[in-house]
Amino acid sequence: MGKVLIIGAGGVGTVVAHKMASLPDVFSEIMLASRTKSKCDAIAERIGKDRIQTAQVDADNVPELVELINSFQPDIVVNVALPYQDLTIMDACLETKTAYLDTANYEPIDEAKFEYKWQWAYQERFKEAGITAILGCGFDPGVTSIFTAHAAKHHFDEIQYLDIVDCNGGDHGKAFATNFNPEINIREVTQKGKYWENGQWVETEPHEIHRPLNYPNIGARESYVIYHEELESLTKNFPSLKRARFWMTFGQEYLTHLRVIQNIGMAGIEPIMYEGKEIIPIQFLKAVLPDPGDLGENYTGETSIGCRIRGLKDGKEKTYYVYNNCKHQDAYNETGAQGVSYTTGVPATIGAMMYLQGLWKKPGVFNVEEFNPDPFMEQLNKLGLPWIEQHDVDIEL
Amino acid sequence: MGKVLIIGAGGVGTVVAHKMASLPDVFSEIMLASRTKSKCDAIAERIGKDRIQTAQVDADNVPELVELINSFQPDIVVNVALPYQDLTIMDACLETKTAYLDTANYEPIDEAKFEYKWQWAYQERFKEAGITAILGCGFDPGVTSIFTAHAAKHHFDEIQYLDIVDCNGGDHGKAFATNFNPEINIREVTQKGKYWENGQWVETEPHEIHRPLNYPNIGARESYVIYHEELESLTKNFPSLKRARFWMTFGQEYLTHLRVIQNIGMAGIEPIMYEGKEIIPIQFLKAVLPDPGDLGENYTGETSIGCRIRGLKDGKEKTYYVYNNCKHQDAYNETGAQGVSYTTGVPATIGAMMYLQGLWKKPGVFNVEEFNPDPFMEQLNKLGLPWIEQHDVDIEL
Repeated sequence: MGKVLIIGAGGVGTVVAHKMASLPDVFSEIMLASRTKSKCDAIAERIGKDRIQTAQVDADNVPELVELINSFQPDIVVNVALPYQDLTIMDACLETKTAYLDTANYEPIDEAKFEYKWQWAYQERFKEAGITAILGCGFDPGVTSIFTAHAAKHHFDEIQYLDIVDCNGGDHGKAFATNFNPEINIREVTQKGKYWENGQWVETEPHEIHRPLNYPNIGARESYVIYHEELESLTKNFPSLKRARFWMTFGQEYLTHLRVIQNIGMAGIEPIMYEGKEIIPIQFLKAVLPDPGDLGENYTGETSIGCRIRGLKDGKEKTYYVYNNCKHQDAYNETGAQGVSYTTGVPATIGAMMYLQGLWKKPGVFNVEEFNPDPFMEQLNKLGLPWIEQHDVDIEL
Repeated sequence: MGKVLIIGAGGVGTVVAHKMASLPDVFSEIMLASRTKSKCDAIAERIGKDRIQTAQVDADNVPELVELINSFQPDIVVNVALPYQDLTIMDACLETKTAYLDTANYEPIDEAKFEYKWQWAYQERFKEAGITAILGCGFDPGVTSIFTAHAAKHHFDEIQYLDIVDCNGGDHGKAFATNFNPEINIREVTQKGKYWENGQWVETEPHEIHRPLNYPNIGARESYVIYHEELESLTKNFPSLKRARFWMTFGQEYLTHLRVIQNIGMAGIEPIMYEGKEIIPIQFLKAVLPDPGDLGENYTGETSIGCRIRGLKDGKEKTYYVYNNCKHQDAYNETGAQGVSYTTGVPATIGAMMYLQGLWKKPGVFNVEEFNPDPFMEQLNKLGLPWIEQHDVDIEL
């Protein structure tokens, strides 16, 4: 049906490539490109080389990207590279009039600032060019936003209180490792907390608000309010929300490690001079830490991510909980990547499918909750991320 | 009286330069040299330029060292550079027939191994050349060994149990910083514990043995048995010792930081490839951490280091405790460096004085306890590190 160019060959790129390769009716031609072509070749080797082409590309370099897109002529570019590279890839899509999809919003490399403003600024240009950009189509952001759209469409007259709850109940057996790019992970987790309440943002100290929450099949885990990017678009697209928060579980040891990493200066994003060369501490730390892509083999346990919602239905208060649980070992056995990569890569695959099937196709720049959630929800059940919904249960929040 | 070449312009070099400059009758000409000449110039500027010459030298490079020594013609070289550089500096002293003094034993850069064997191997060559090498003349090793020699000479017929106790009761106000070169400090503190008992070494896990000990003017502090280099020479030079241990105080936060630094791989001494360049994690960490030389200004509290000894005198059991307390602020006010640098630099100054005065001068390689402790003990009282001794008190150990 369509040609897709995947940019980025980390854990998420691995999952996207595997999933797309297993859907030849949708993804008739697939190219996987990254700065390091050998990583693409290794993934292609595991999948079966006839299904996937590979290429080298520097995603910071617009002319290089344009050249690759012009030569392969994809229908859509799926960006699972670094968030720093969102804008250069969007520029290349604009120039070549190619659809665009990503899983995380742009952030500048020199400040940890999670905002959609840079990407939303492309709205008019994408509209004029007649091409579609789908932003934030991983799990969170992504599925959590689609869960919310699904709830608003089918189960509520008015959604009022949204709590996105993200638990990784897995154990990778290492003293310390991050589940995705450590640079991005540490930048995200060490920032101040922020949530939406009564029409404005409330800022907290990092990890200031926390409490144990119960997760299906996992049990109680201490959960912390952190800022997460889907809150920005959801509060805009669902103005009835009186409060929207994002909770993530962290173990005490994980937090201790993060605290020390900050104290010793290794979370720093400003370059320091070392032997005549500028080095950014957190990027060097990334090179020293375990590669998240290598965690899969011995990863046990599962993730549980969902939305807990309160609101009104037929004039009465109602609660609703929709979630997916994903076992790390199942993800690893299917794709060679662990659950955190899997839960991001499968939704990106489905998003690209939605576009190629003409179900999510309109000129402009959109967050996923602005599309019809129904066909996406259906594919989640088919492609490895089945969801469960519960009505009028105790959602604890 | 004599000419001295100081190599190394860190906190200890700063103290040595200040102290020597204040003793013109002993140190008539002083040269301060290091890899970065501007650091030497800054120290010389503070002291008064007429008292100190400066030079650039790469202490890893024997021909460069020989050239500098031949041109300045010092009577003694005081090595307060890095322990990795002890052997190249000893080689240069041998070639130029110049006396040598250092404050820490040689360790190879690629393995954290604290042993005198490499330096003791120079014994015959120094003897034949007719020149003196004084090893380990800081506080610990250094003063602690001289305290032991003083006790053995004046207060015991037989010393049997030696516990060196090292407490830094200071507060530098930073979340994490090391008091001397972080690379050396972390290598030392994260190694396995080891102590001498009944004629053999007993190895422990890192920080396995610990208990609170009381320090004068500070109070109780949790203290940990770690291996420290003077144990090697003291057990050899005082064969009556049935047990010899070294205790150092650490705060819980300090240990947590060390544990995490190891967990995340930043204590690693093997190079990793980063952007096409080999970088040793612990050396990069050193560049990110606060410079120990900058801790002085806001450092409060004091150090307390001493020897607690049990043994026999006139056929009866006897206990003895000799120690020095040093206030960080006093050290800073006098020299611009904090107490840990001060307690290392003053003994190095006195050691060089002992040599120039002909009191510690004999051909060969010697640890400080092999010299007469009396004139050294006298100078400690005069030059800012007064000691206190207590007989037949509860030494807790």
